[in-house]
Amino acid sequence: MPRLRLVLGQSNPVVGDLVGNAEQVLAAARAAHAAGADLLAMGEMALTGYPIEDLASRPSFLAASARAVEALAARLAIEGLGELVVVVGHPDGPLAPRELGTSNAPTAIAQNVASVLHRGAVVARYAKHHLPNYSVFDEYRVFIPGDELLVLRLQGVDVAIIVCEDLWRDGGPVGRVLEADAGVLVVVNASPFERDKDEVRLPLVTRRAVETDTIVAYVNIVGGQDDLVFDGDSVVVDGHGTILARAPQFVEHLLVVDVDAAAATDTSLPPAVARVAIATAASPKPELPRDVALPPDDREQIWNALVLGVRDYVEKNGFRSVILGLSGGIDSAACAAIAVDALGADRVHGVSMPSRWSSDHSRSDADDLADRLGLHYSVEPIADLVAPVETQLALDGVAAENLQARIRAIILMGLSNMHGHLVLTTGNKTELAVGYSTIYGDSVGGFAPIKDVPKTLVWELARWRNEYAVARGETPPIPENSIAKPPSAELRPGQVDQDTLPPYELLDAVLEAYVTRHLGKDDIVGLGYDHDLVHRITGLVDRAEWKRRQGAIGPKISGMAFGRDRRLPITYRPTE
Amino acid sequence: MPRLRLVLGQSNPVVGDLVGNAEQVLAAARAAHAAGADLLAMGEMALTGYPIEDLASRPSFLAASARAVEALAARLAIEGLGELVVVVGHPDGPLAPRELGTSNAPTAIAQNVASVLHRGAVVARYAKHHLPNYSVFDEYRVFIPGDELLVLRLQGVDVAIIVCEDLWRDGGPVGRVLEADAGVLVVVNASPFERDKDEVRLPLVTRRAVETDTIVAYVNIVGGQDDLVFDGDSVVVDGHGTILARAPQFVEHLLVVDVDAAAATDTSLPPAVARVAIATAASPKPELPRDVALPPDDREQIWNALVLGVRDYVEKNGFRSVILGLSGGIDSAACAAIAVDALGADRVHGVSMPSRWSSDHSRSDADDLADRLGLHYSVEPIADLVAPVETQLALDGVAAENLQARIRAIILMGLSNMHGHLVLTTGNKTELAVGYSTIYGDSVGGFAPIKDVPKTLVWELARWRNEYAVARGETPPIPENSIAKPPSAELRPGQVDQDTLPPYELLDAVLEAYVTRHLGKDDIVGLGYDHDLVHRITGLVDRAEWKRRQGAIGPKISGMAFGRDRRLPITYRPTE
Repeated sequence: MPRLRLVLGQSNPVVGDLVGNAEQVLAAARAAHAAGADLLAMGEMALTGYPIEDLASRPSFLAASARAVEALAARLAIEGLGELVVVVGHPDGPLAPRELGTSNAPTAIAQNVASVLHRGAVVARYAKHHLPNYSVFDEYRVFIPGDELLVLRLQGVDVAIIVCEDLWRDGGPVGRVLEADAGVLVVVNASPFERDKDEVRLPLVTRRAVETDTIVAYVNIVGGQDDLVFDGDSVVVDGHGTILARAPQFVEHLLVVDVDAAAATDTSLPPAVARVAIATAASPKPELPRDVALPPDDREQIWNALVLGVRDYVEKNGFRSVILGLSGGIDSAACAAIAVDALGADRVHGVSMPSRWSSDHSRSDADDLADRLGLHYSVEPIADLVAPVETQLALDGVAAENLQARIRAIILMGLSNMHGHLVLTTGNKTELAVGYSTIYGDSVGGFAPIKDVPKTLVWELARWRNEYAVARGETPPIPENSIAKPPSAELRPGQVDQDTLPPYELLDAVLEAYVTRHLGKDDIVGLGYDHDLVHRITGLVDRAEWKRRQGAIGPKISGMAFGRDRRLPITYRPTE
Repeated sequence: MPRLRLVLGQSNPVVGDLVGNAEQVLAAARAAHAAGADLLAMGEMALTGYPIEDLASRPSFLAASARAVEALAARLAIEGLGELVVVVGHPDGPLAPRELGTSNAPTAIAQNVASVLHRGAVVARYAKHHLPNYSVFDEYRVFIPGDELLVLRLQGVDVAIIVCEDLWRDGGPVGRVLEADAGVLVVVNASPFERDKDEVRLPLVTRRAVETDTIVAYVNIVGGQDDLVFDGDSVVVDGHGTILARAPQFVEHLLVVDVDAAAATDTSLPPAVARVAIATAASPKPELPRDVALPPDDREQIWNALVLGVRDYVEKNGFRSVILGLSGGIDSAACAAIAVDALGADRVHGVSMPSRWSSDHSRSDADDLADRLGLHYSVEPIADLVAPVETQLALDGVAAENLQARIRAIILMGLSNMHGHLVLTTGNKTELAVGYSTIYGDSVGGFAPIKDVPKTLVWELARWRNEYAVARGETPPIPENSIAKPPSAELRPGQVDQDTLPPYELLDAVLEAYVTRHLGKDDIVGLGYDHDLVHRITGLVDRAEWKRRQGAIGPKISGMAFGRDRRLPITYRPTE
């Protein structure tokens, strides 16, 4: 059996940064070449970043991408890397629009392709067949599907190439890979992290490898892009279902692996298959160490996703520092710990903003947190700022409560405007679901680290993070009291969340059914929850849609995040 | 030729309100029956409202819709309206999912159908073939396409039924209508208003009527639904291209028309065509008056769209009143006039919030506006509220400017929380494009009446509205000085917008090229605009994406509104 040395380049592209992303491919190619590789595969859209959304319908962007891929091929050859076969994803167009819209709105004019670069040129191209258009994906909006399979013959081995969603569909290109009898199937991906997704993705890769009796090389990008965090977790599985190599999550990585692939036989190819022969000489290669990472504990994966989401939002958007309010509560404590893990304490600024209703512990827990994390810390009491507004407008009740949250927002935004900090907003998914927050108050900020984390999971993560610190002989970052005490917005004397909301365990369970599982009210009552409670909670969710629309983005970690993952009207009069 | 009496029911459904929307159909059916109609056609999704977005993937919603259509059919029969053939749109499902997603996200499980109700039952159903998935539309996300044509034989006439987008595509069902030789083509629509869309839509309907030598009956819904305004403009055109009837825009209307249609011949039908014979007796009918509305002037259409957008957002979401800041400038003046036209002066509250930098005219122009419109008016000076924050935080420069806007936001939100007013935010499209606004300041509010109106068009509309008043012997609502004076945010002494921004005519022209036409920077420079100016403006647009994401929704009136019409990343490092 011929032996091929494959390198999967798990890179972290920035959307739009054609120059920087091409440099990432070049760096990977240099390393792959030095490692004696035959083929380097980068992720889906590794040249442009993913998702590019409606940039795919801007002809100037497509032209620039086309120039970038040609320049990359040339540059590889100039640097003496032309013999290496490099597979890289990018949009390809403009083509004739798939359809004519009813207005002058752009429609799909591009394909989502993987190009094969060799000896200074693009020698072949595969266009993705299956365009995901559900969840956070809008690919049918911006891409035209391909319908041809591509098989490279490389050192006597047939190497098929497909893109991401193509692997998931039964009867799609995967079936044709089987007919084409390829030895290796390279899958080029941009697959975002979700809790437990590794428990779906790896079995899928394994099943496809076994089904097709092919070595499947699955390469994913890594990094935060707005609300998505790509986790990498690139993997190579052989036709027996054995994992030959697996990259760690959430970091850039070059996964180098030798595969002993079946030699090509001259079977007749199914229709619409392009076979491209690439002449490269096999070279003797030193033995490789085994590179198989094991994904950590579920909570550690989620924490790492949140950390990378924050870090990449900050870095890719050019912020030097972040600021957030520290209330002494669990949400702001968790966000501060995430920010410090992402950026280091020196780039994180915490502000305690006590009011006349703030408890002693809210101040002391915030102090304690700041000590533990070592971040920049200041105290800005709000009483003297609240009073003039409250008096002039004669505010009371909820209006007066919201005023306190809004004065705090003014403080954070004022400090942000003075010093250039990105404001982090600390609301969790449960609050966001039921609208338990003050819009233009505690919701202000450019990024929301725990927006997709339900309250009960915030506690779990905080406990895990402290245990993780203890296990490494470090100071637990989150004050025990912030975890243990009953949550409170402290906007009136003695207030606790459970004055207004059901217990969080119950609330999160009903929200899981309504939001994540998309069940109707009757179905949820059928699960055994109280009728009035279900109607109350779902009513809160429906009525908070307008607030969510104006909320900051934050990293998606669940199968159903608020944002583009769940698209529902604001104006909505439910009768079912 | 057999004569059929058709009624097109231009109704204003509320998304989700199955009971209320069914009542609208019933009311139309009663009137149609009283008018001696043979067939009543309602709009696309008239039973559920449109767009229902991801509600189409919630099985309980589909089940409720299915019950509602059965109940409607039964109710029509019970009321003695069973002989009337009623065509009404709704989602139909759940069906097997079109695909299995990579997560537990719902995928399409429904079709977008028009059901034919007769004698108490659903006798036939047509599923939309072409699912728009561009611009504001996400139909491929939530619907499964149909592939059968439906032809009713009604009093000897073959009546084909299609849905909205099906009419726009060459070679789709329209081609098969031609082959089927139908006498009447009923097109069931939910087609939102856009400036100049009547200049596209009517020619299309006319072209299809002539091409197929068929009478085309085009029925559209009306009303505001979040950021969309459906304008109605239902129309019937015969095979010579003559307009037989046309409904007015922006109001509910029953369009009653007699058509002399070609009698069906027993041609063999193309494959996948269901033909349903409906037995009804022709009845003698009194002569009808001609009902052909002429759409008004472009500016009047836009104004009416904004007015209906505001009115329906307020009414459908259950607000009794609105509040907005009155600065004396043109934007807030235009918004106040729109709100008063939408709701009446008694439901509109204006607040002047002068600062130490406010000019005398800003106060006097706001007073003048309030007088002209007769709305509720109050004055809340901000100096004493700004000073304590500015001092405590030592704010200056832009931070101090933004503070003033944010104190104003606190005032409006405080009054909203006290009195239940919906806050209207008065930013225009030009400001939104370049980020010339204070987030959590002048951008706060639940609805943005002129969010899709460029500054230069705001002036045009204001002038038109005043002329319209003069022509009717009414007081022009907008102070001449608010139109004539140079625009200013008045956040520092002597500030005017053109200190910071290019002249608005130039700015709007470049924005039209970049935002609406989706051109690249080089293309825009190629149109003759200054290189640095183009790069400066497009850079502002790119960097303001995060602010726009957190902005209020507002009525779309252009071919490319900010919001779901234009989907671009926040994290974006442009290199082209």
